[in-house]
Amino acid sequence: MKLRRRQLIGWGAAGAGAVAAAAALPGLWRQWQSARVPPLPESAPPVSGMRPLALLREFDYGTLKQENGRTVREFRIEARTNAIQLNPAVSFVSWNFNGRVPGPTLRVKAGERVRVLFVNHGGHAHSMHFHGIHASAMDGVRPVRNGAATIYEFDAEPFGVHLYHCHVAPVARHVSKGLYGLFIVDPPGGRPPADEMALVMGGFDLDDDGRNDIYAFNGVPNYYLRHPIPVYQHQPLRLYLLNMIEWDAAVTFHLHANFFKLLRSGRTLAADEEADVVTMGTAERHILEFAYRDPGTYMFHPHQDAIAENGCMGQFRVLPMDGSATPVEPGHGGHG
Amino acid sequence: MKLRRRQLIGWGAAGAGAVAAAAALPGLWRQWQSARVPPLPESAPPVSGMRPLALLREFDYGTLKQENGRTVREFRIEARTNAIQLNPAVSFVSWNFNGRVPGPTLRVKAGERVRVLFVNHGGHAHSMHFHGIHASAMDGVRPVRNGAATIYEFDAEPFGVHLYHCHVAPVARHVSKGLYGLFIVDPPGGRPPADEMALVMGGFDLDDDGRNDIYAFNGVPNYYLRHPIPVYQHQPLRLYLLNMIEWDAAVTFHLHANFFKLLRSGRTLAADEEADVVTMGTAERHILEFAYRDPGTYMFHPHQDAIAENGCMGQFRVLPMDGSATPVEPGHGGHG
Amino acid sequence: MKLRRRQLIGWGAAGAGAVAAAAALPGLWRQWQSARVPPLPESAPPVSGMRPLALLREFDYGTLKQENGRTVREFRIEARTNAIQLNPAVSFVSWNFNGRVPGPTLRVKAGERVRVLFVNHGGHAHSMHFHGIHASAMDGVRPVRNGAATIYEFDAEPFGVHLYHCHVAPVARHVSKGLYGLFIVDPPGGRPPADEMALVMGGFDLDDDGRNDIYAFNGVPNYYLRHPIPVYQHQPLRLYLLNMIEWDAAVTFHLHANFFKLLRSGRTLAADEEADVVTMGTAERHILEFAYRDPGTYMFHPHQDAIAENGCMGQFRVLPMDGSATPVEPGHGGHG
Repeated sequence: MKLRRRQLIGWGAAGAGAVAAAAALPGLWRQWQSARVPPLPESAPPVSGMRPLALLREFDYGTLKQENGRTVREFRIEARTNAIQLNPAVSFVSWNFNGRVPGPTLRVKAGERVRVLFVNHGGHAHSMHFHGIHASAMDGVRPVRNGAATIYEFDAEPFGVHLYHCHVAPVARHVSKGLYGLFIVDPPGGRPPADEMALVMGGFDLDDDGRNDIYAFNGVPNYYLRHPIPVYQHQPLRLYLLNMIEWDAAVTFHLHANFFKLLRSGRTLAADEEADVVTMGTAERHILEFAYRDPGTYMFHPHQDAIAENGCMGQFRVLPMDGSATPVEPGHGGHG
Repeated sequence: MKLRRRQLIGWGAAGAGAVAAAAALPGLWRQWQSARVPPLPESAPPVSGMRPLALLREFDYGTLKQENGRTVREFRIEARTNAIQLNPAVSFVSWNFNGRVPGPTLRVKAGERVRVLFVNHGGHAHSMHFHGIHASAMDGVRPVRNGAATIYEFDAEPFGVHLYHCHVAPVARHVSKGLYGLFIVDPPGGRPPADEMALVMGGFDLDDDGRNDIYAFNGVPNYYLRHPIPVYQHQPLRLYLLNMIEWDAAVTFHLHANFFKLLRSGRTLAADEEADVVTMGTAERHILEFAYRDPGTYMFHPHQDAIAENGCMGQFRVLPMDGSATPVEPGHGGHG
Repeated sequence: MKLRRRQLIGWGAAGAGAVAAAAALPGLWRQWQSARVPPLPESAPPVSGMRPLALLREFDYGTLKQENGRTVREFRIEARTNAIQLNPAVSFVSWNFNGRVPGPTLRVKAGERVRVLFVNHGGHAHSMHFHGIHASAMDGVRPVRNGAATIYEFDAEPFGVHLYHCHVAPVARHVSKGLYGLFIVDPPGGRPPADEMALVMGGFDLDDDGRNDIYAFNGVPNYYLRHPIPVYQHQPLRLYLLNMIEWDAAVTFHLHANFFKLLRSGRTLAADEEADVVTMGTAERHILEFAYRDPGTYMFHPHQDAIAENGCMGQFRVLPMDGSATPVEPGHGGHG
């Protein structure tokens, strides 16, 4: 698939517009969630240009178009190379999508047409392989050379919580360098209102020996431990949780002092089961729904504790639901 | 939370009383199980003071109190340091609760108030982190220094099979030294009568290199292989099974020549599914229900066979249900 | 259990007959599947005597007998030692059943009597341990010395997808050398017609260091990558999938560009859940049901990508369902 120059130019603009819109109109995706979200603490600093507390709740709805009576959602994704400061001593050269690890959380509604312009400025050949149902030509296993671009286009199905990642060999290396992100396909009728968050577990192999040395939720080790995620008491919370750790066979995810409803692969609207520990192999992902009854600070982490203690540790700060709060919005807004 | 001296003294007595009661009145917890349990073979020797065949069916119901019309169940747990003779050649210095690995199987009914006096005589700072729903102040992530004590108090919820363990850093080290145990919260109406057993898979890292060298069910490698667990044919059996192996990502549990009903996290009363192999990440635990049709000897072990062959191997000895047997009791007794 | 010489002779003949029948009458098991199966490409060469594209759909139904009004299905399995050419540079001395890795996919109907003559010509002591419900005497944990034989006999239950493997110590070594295979017990009423395939993930530890160096689906690394499995568009496909990888705690299985219905342990007739990634510990196995909408080539592999890229990678080639095709057969044939 060759791109004509005009296409690229037009799309670049649309992509930029979409990003700008998302940044300027956070109310839109907050309305989508229809739930109370605490303001973020100003004390939480960016790390290598990423703001883990903000990107947790940032969903990229792309740009909406109508074509022949059909809804098309367009995204623009760029493979890049950036250094991430994993801790004061360690800087890691990540390969990533749109300058962040994990890449943007793409979000669409089931049945919509999805069109992704993938531009490779990463310095190596890369690709975007989406999980979900689509034709083989759109499967993203063919390398796109550095400086080139391609378009992936398919219908969004089935609803659930999926992912995308580079599928260029060696895949384990490309993925563990940071080339992955969540791809959420909402069910046609949406889900009940909740404070929604995207959480991705990743590992960093610093010395290329096929073993991870440092781990993280959403790219920055221990960020949510030092800067707990503010949420409100009694508020329904919904995690879109992905394990993207290579080199380790599996991890568990444990939520302290609570139980979550588990919607495996997000393929259901109601819970399959309840747990406070769930085992997830690489590329496994689920929706977790829960709420906190009591204010306080609560950890979450894999229960392979050596992994947790090497960076994959976070906390929720549960704030009291006091009278000054704005009420939960009754309905469920549309996309973007 | 500071303890007044008088509290500690009174509690120490109550705790000792509870332990004594459990030892003196085994009929109580056997009644709770309302199922036939074979006598234990006298040939099975203790190992480092632990009797794996006995502790398998020992449930610590604590001491019952009524406070303002409410049932309170009090436990006394002490962190200690003991050597365990893992095999004739290897003695392992364990950190543990109440002198055994795993710690006592604490058992309460959903909705009861649970009060745990934790006394640290372990030589290092330790804590007790319980799984289950509770306020953050009772989450047990704060270290209790050696020689000090604290009280954890919360309502027992939700029903299911949970755990407790030390949460002092490095957690992987504290846990793998032996600081863990089962915490069973029974559903309000109980479960059907069965011969109930608590089984915990653990690993021992002898040289502190972050890899396990020896494994065990209930603390003593290969004990149930050399001294098979006697059970009766046709008798409903219920395992409370916990994987507490650090350093390995996951293990499976395999029951030979049989299938079990699987109640994930014990969060249901009826089976979710049937299997003879289930994968369990660290801190994952389930209820397994099954019965043997034919007398004989049957293995159980993780199917990562190198782990099984390094100590995590056991057997059931299924005894014929002959006419001399006392009938199964019809009802389902209360706690303690 | 001693075998009389006459028994062995008679059985050897029956066994040979059964194999011949299966080879001469492929229509029988194709009728059983009652689904369209594309012809195999002639370009796909054998590897060390194994034809991975053929054995994928080869089910060994044994030899049928009626004894006292009861159906008995007899199998003859021989432990052997063969070299497998894993790649142009590496020849691996496998220990195996019937000269192939994995061993033959044995297939019976629930409730039938199963009788397996096991003859050990493997050069070491071996055994056959079957998963499923049976008496301890038939559990196959006792070594059968080289040159000896034994008979395993039991009723086939419960229905599901099971396995057999050598259970002689060290089991991890005997299994990883190749001594394993699928054992399918069909539900009494069968399953809906589908193009059925048996897929086993295995690992090879070349230098006996307790770590796998090369992996494979059905014994030959990357075979289905170089020679994709032909299937028809819109055709129901059913995988009997087993993870028999030792040394690694677990793997996931990922199907590209599609979702499968997951029937855990094959213990159900309808799907428990839908996924495109499922985590499987050693000896875990499931039925996966799916169909492809669009022609094309689609990968499948564990999503621990280093494992996939070391040989455990395959592809389906989905062929268009054109007018020249024979119609799907309506019914569901019997066994053998």
